Amino acid sequence: MNGMEMEQMGPQNFLYGCELTADKDITFSPEDDDCEHQLSLRMVCVDPTTKDELHVVEVQGHDCEGQEVKAVLATLKPSSLPSVCLGGFEISPPAVFRLKSGSGPIHISGQHLVMTDGDQSFDEEE
Amino acid sequence: MNGMEMEQMGPQNFLYGCELTADKDITFSPEDDDCEHQLSLRMVCVDPTTKDELHVVEVQGHDCEGQEVKAVLATLKPSSLPSVCLGGFEISPPAVFRLKSGSGPIHISGQHLVMTDGDQSFDEEE
Amino acid sequence: MNGMEMEQMGPQNFLYGCELTADKDITFSPEDDDCEHQLSLRMVCVDPTTKDELHVVEVQGHDCEGQEVKAVLATLKPSSLPSVCLGGFEISPPAVFRLKSGSGPIHISGQHLVMTDGDQSFDEEE
Amino acid sequence: MNGMEMEQMGPQNFLYGCELTADKDITFSPEDDDCEHQLSLRMVCVDPTTKDELHVVEVQGHDCEGQEVKAVLATLKPSSLPSVCLGGFEISPPAVFRLKSGSGPIHISGQHLVMTDGDQSFDEEE
Amino acid sequence: MNGMEMEQMGPQNFLYGCELTADKDITFSPEDDDCEHQLSLRMVCVDPTTKDELHVVEVQGHDCEGQEVKAVLATLKPSSLPSVCLGGFEISPPAVFRLKSGSGPIHISGQHLVMTDGDQSFDEEE
Repeated sequence: MNGMEMEQMGPQNFLYGCELTADKDITFSPEDDDCEHQLSLRMVCVDPTTKDELHVVEVQGHDCEGQEVKAVLATLKPSSLPSVCLGGFEISPPAVFRLKSGSGPIHISGQHLVMTDGDQSFDEEE
Repeated sequence: MNGMEMEQMGPQNFLYGCELTADKDITFSPEDDDCEHQLSLRMVCVDPTTKDELHVVEVQGHDCEGQEVKAVLATLKPSSLPSVCLGGFEISPPAVFRLKSGSGPIHISGQHLVMTDGDQSFDEEE
Repeated sequence: MNGMEMEQMGPQNFLYGCELTADKDITFSPEDDDCEHQLSLRMVCVDPTTKDELHVVEVQGHDCEGQEVKAVLATLKPSSLPSVCLGGFEISPPAVFRLKSGSGPIHISGQHLVMTDGDQSFDEEE
Repeated sequence: MNGMEMEQMGPQNFLYGCELTADKDITFSPEDDDCEHQLSLRMVCVDPTTKDELHVVEVQGHDCEGQEVKAVLATLKPSSLPSVCLGGFEISPPAVFRLKSGSGPIHISGQHLVMTDGDQSFDEEE
Repeated sequence: MNGMEMEQMGPQNFLYGCELTADKDITFSPEDDDCEHQLSLRMVCVDPTTKDELHVVEVQGHDCEGQEVKAVLATLKPSSLPSVCLGGFEISPPAVFRLKSGSGPIHISGQHLVMTDGDQSFDEEE
């Protein structure tokens, strides 16, 4: 972290973007003991090179009992629905994004929120 | 619950995902006297195996007089609308999700929020 | 109201759902002097029985001068847009929902928020 | 304003709706020295009488240097996208809505928020 | 800034709009040492003059380690998805918007939030 806003309270807002293909999962698991991290996912989008078939984007995280759980973030098809808004889907690390169906590429974007331990919890401010 | 963030105030955020088919309803009714639970639903999505017909996803909960009420969460069709954002539809337990029409599978995803009794109420922080 | 959460502060969250047809308007006008009521509308959806034509859903309420005002909530067509997210459109009673065009059925869903008079105002917590 | 909720803190919530046609712009510029006004725009929708062509809805307001600025609120086409959610696009007066392309009618709806001067600022509560 | 609301707390809300074409990137980098600036992006829309091909809108900003990162804001096609809601995608300066694919024009709109240094941080109020 560049620290330029370290003096402020509340989470800092950074840009997050990743690209999924059939053989490339993306892991969100920041190694950082001093801060809390969270994603607020905004958009899932196709590319002009994405094949015109249904693409299913899956996220793997944890449920409230600590068990691994998978959920579908979005299903897109270039010719009918090339983008979909996730509206601020909050994901706590560790999480893995992958294509359950389709070969991609598929783009995920959103905000990466970082909060130092002394700050107010993420959970309070939504 | 794994307890790793038990010391914090405000609700904890976990991943929620389920899959509906014609003969499989999903009940959200956590057995937990020590915490309040709530879903913040984000997305409803089809699968490549979902038949190309209109699928109507229904949720059954309670109105303000304690009576059972049913509401339509989303209507999807794989060829025209394979995903729809719910934008954080807050569902209090107990609730049941089911397919009113269509044979599925249909995926529901969102955030499962858990708050210990000593915390601020869910209702205050939205 | 069932009162089971009466001790908490902030609004209580209940499920709201209704179905509009050409000859059936829906009025939202809770008779309850002890509480404030508000709808946070989430989704408008068609049904498999809905004819494939444009359906226009209208809400009638009041403007800031107390005059009656009508607004269009959503325009849907089963074959092209079977569902649309309203993203939490807040409606204060009294309000009437009706089909301005189309014969329905059309489903509206969302959250019914109820706040006792001693609570913080709705308007403060959004 | 009807004043029936004047005692409460925070903004009051009223319904807002307008209809644009090629020769009819809509101005949002409440004459009211005692209150602050803001729109939280929710939906832009076509009508069954809207011609099947692209309609571009423009809003004219002010940037942070006080200069006039125009922005596109939504582009709709009755046959492919008859409604779009704006998700709470906050517009401060004075503002003008107009059709940059297309002959309409196009409907805009949302919430009109009114806050008395003694209240907390709009800007703090989003 | 015109200063007309300088006395208030919390961020001020201004209108933001820009137009991207194949050879015109847009930079958001306000030169202003006295205030914090942020965009809350709402909509991305095509124009009637936009060619009917997939348009991919990219934003370039910084990740939490200060490295440059690119993310896809939206993928639009005039005939199938002429508008998409971003739902309040918060972008911190400096940022650059550009067309990764397609020749445009593509319109981006949203709110430009400005906060004086004495105010509460942006990050606290979301």
